[in-house]
Amino acid sequence: MKMLEFLLEKVKVHDPLTMAVAVAQDEDVLSAVKQAVSLNLVRAILVGDELKIREIAKEIHFDLNHVVILDETDPAVACAKAVKLVALKEAHILMKGLVDTAIILRAVLHKEDGLRTESILSHVSLAQVPAMDRLFLITDAAMNMYPELEAKKGILRNSLVVANAIGINHPKVGVVCAVEKVNPKMPCTLDAQALSETAKAGEFENCDVDGPFALDNAVSVLAAKHKGIKTPNAGMSDILLVPNIEAGNMLYKSVTFFAGGNAAGLIVGAKAPIVLTSRADSDQNKLVSIALSAVMAAHLKNLEE
Amino acid sequence: MKMLEFLLEKVKVHDPLTMAVAVAQDEDVLSAVKQAVSLNLVRAILVGDELKIREIAKEIHFDLNHVVILDETDPAVACAKAVKLVALKEAHILMKGLVDTAIILRAVLHKEDGLRTESILSHVSLAQVPAMDRLFLITDAAMNMYPELEAKKGILRNSLVVANAIGINHPKVGVVCAVEKVNPKMPCTLDAQALSETAKAGEFENCDVDGPFALDNAVSVLAAKHKGIKTPNAGMSDILLVPNIEAGNMLYKSVTFFAGGNAAGLIVGAKAPIVLTSRADSDQNKLVSIALSAVMAAHLKNLEE
Repeated sequence: MKMLEFLLEKVKVHDPLTMAVAVAQDEDVLSAVKQAVSLNLVRAILVGDELKIREIAKEIHFDLNHVVILDETDPAVACAKAVKLVALKEAHILMKGLVDTAIILRAVLHKEDGLRTESILSHVSLAQVPAMDRLFLITDAAMNMYPELEAKKGILRNSLVVANAIGINHPKVGVVCAVEKVNPKMPCTLDAQALSETAKAGEFENCDVDGPFALDNAVSVLAAKHKGIKTPNAGMSDILLVPNIEAGNMLYKSVTFFAGGNAAGLIVGAKAPIVLTSRADSDQNKLVSIALSAVMAAHLKNLEE
Repeated sequence: MKMLEFLLEKVKVHDPLTMAVAVAQDEDVLSAVKQAVSLNLVRAILVGDELKIREIAKEIHFDLNHVVILDETDPAVACAKAVKLVALKEAHILMKGLVDTAIILRAVLHKEDGLRTESILSHVSLAQVPAMDRLFLITDAAMNMYPELEAKKGILRNSLVVANAIGINHPKVGVVCAVEKVNPKMPCTLDAQALSETAKAGEFENCDVDGPFALDNAVSVLAAKHKGIKTPNAGMSDILLVPNIEAGNMLYKSVTFFAGGNAAGLIVGAKAPIVLTSRADSDQNKLVSIALSAVMAAHLKNLEE
């Protein structure tokens, strides 16, 4: 099944939740929101320059009759207002529009009015590639640059929630490095070992954590066998925990640009999922990212209730 | 054109060169050598346990009539002998068999009897993926772990020779990070800037060097346009210079395991190309790696003459 259909299946059991779009006056963003609304994935509240929003909407034939618009021309204030909608539970998803990531994150991380939780913020992507028969998660490809062990634990925990949201109740986490052997010259292999041991000691619930793996033996049972790797979950990772932002980002982008696959991305760890698509993302990327955020928001709402 | 055919076209103008296989008694390795010999890619000298080599050859129907075997049961000595064949120009390519990488590299790096040059040793891979219409190189995915700026210069220079060998006379090098903007918090973006500037000052001949790029805007002109990147070579990289072994290794392996594409790998910087395939590589991987080494060896021979 294609990623979008898979995610649509997951959300159609609920009424659509509401997504607040901060600084919404952007054609690419509004196109994606239009599609998401028409597929009943989300309802939308557009925060931003109403005049510009209406102009763009007209151009792209986005019928705004059932969409709420909050007029706010200042980008930072628009971010704060969108965040407040989420804080007050008027919205359940936050989406970045035509504004620097740093500005919207400042609003998200604001001590009193933001969306902080005890978790670290991290990026989780959902990927589907032609050569593999399953969906899997990659983290962190875009938020944490060179996480130390403690940060990796937080990143791992965040990804478990996303895995649960898409129906993987007991995910297999593969801690991926360049090699499958612990080598003190490659610090991430030591972290991988520590994470596996921590997991075996019971620190993370309802998951298996193994590593270090190289990518091949994390995702392919056959490759793991060829290498003689005995770890029971070798080749079966649902979640690929990568060591640094360069590795994660390249892996994430290879899904689209090398494999012609599908990738959705989300920021998690705040009170609500945050859709932070970039100009370089395709329309399909943006749409599946909104779809994933809708699935995640519904899951978080369920956990609260 | 498929990668193997492309490489076969390149070598068929020469008589096949000779490949010395160190510790050749390995079924996977001998299968690849058998195929390479039958395709006239290389001639082979097998150094290793002759009894075992003959046993395996019989099993896989590898006719050894036109293959030289040097009997040597000690792996380290077999490596030294294979290296010596290359040093004496009896062979032009070195291939690793059933022996630890560290052991064969020790022979390669031996001060008097090895294959050292003034260059750094580095790994270069040639990749072909369904979503892109051209071949490109990735370096360094397997040898240098966390290269500093000076090492990156050497890695870059090595990759230029491989690019020339496959017929790219003025390669475009994209220095790839997680982002396309210089950010002092991501040291590789500073290196990318320094490498671009060094190149513009004329340090590297017959190439363009640009960066930092993210993967998308290094390989896709469309993605670069979407991001508003003005660098003339954005999206057109022939060579992807990656910042660390994790990023490179994942990118390299994503070619096969995500994209279902083709990847060849080589160690360059020594007096001859070195084929260091791993048990996890497919037969196809091994064969195209030998083919790439044959193209590279012929190029180095031409440069000498």
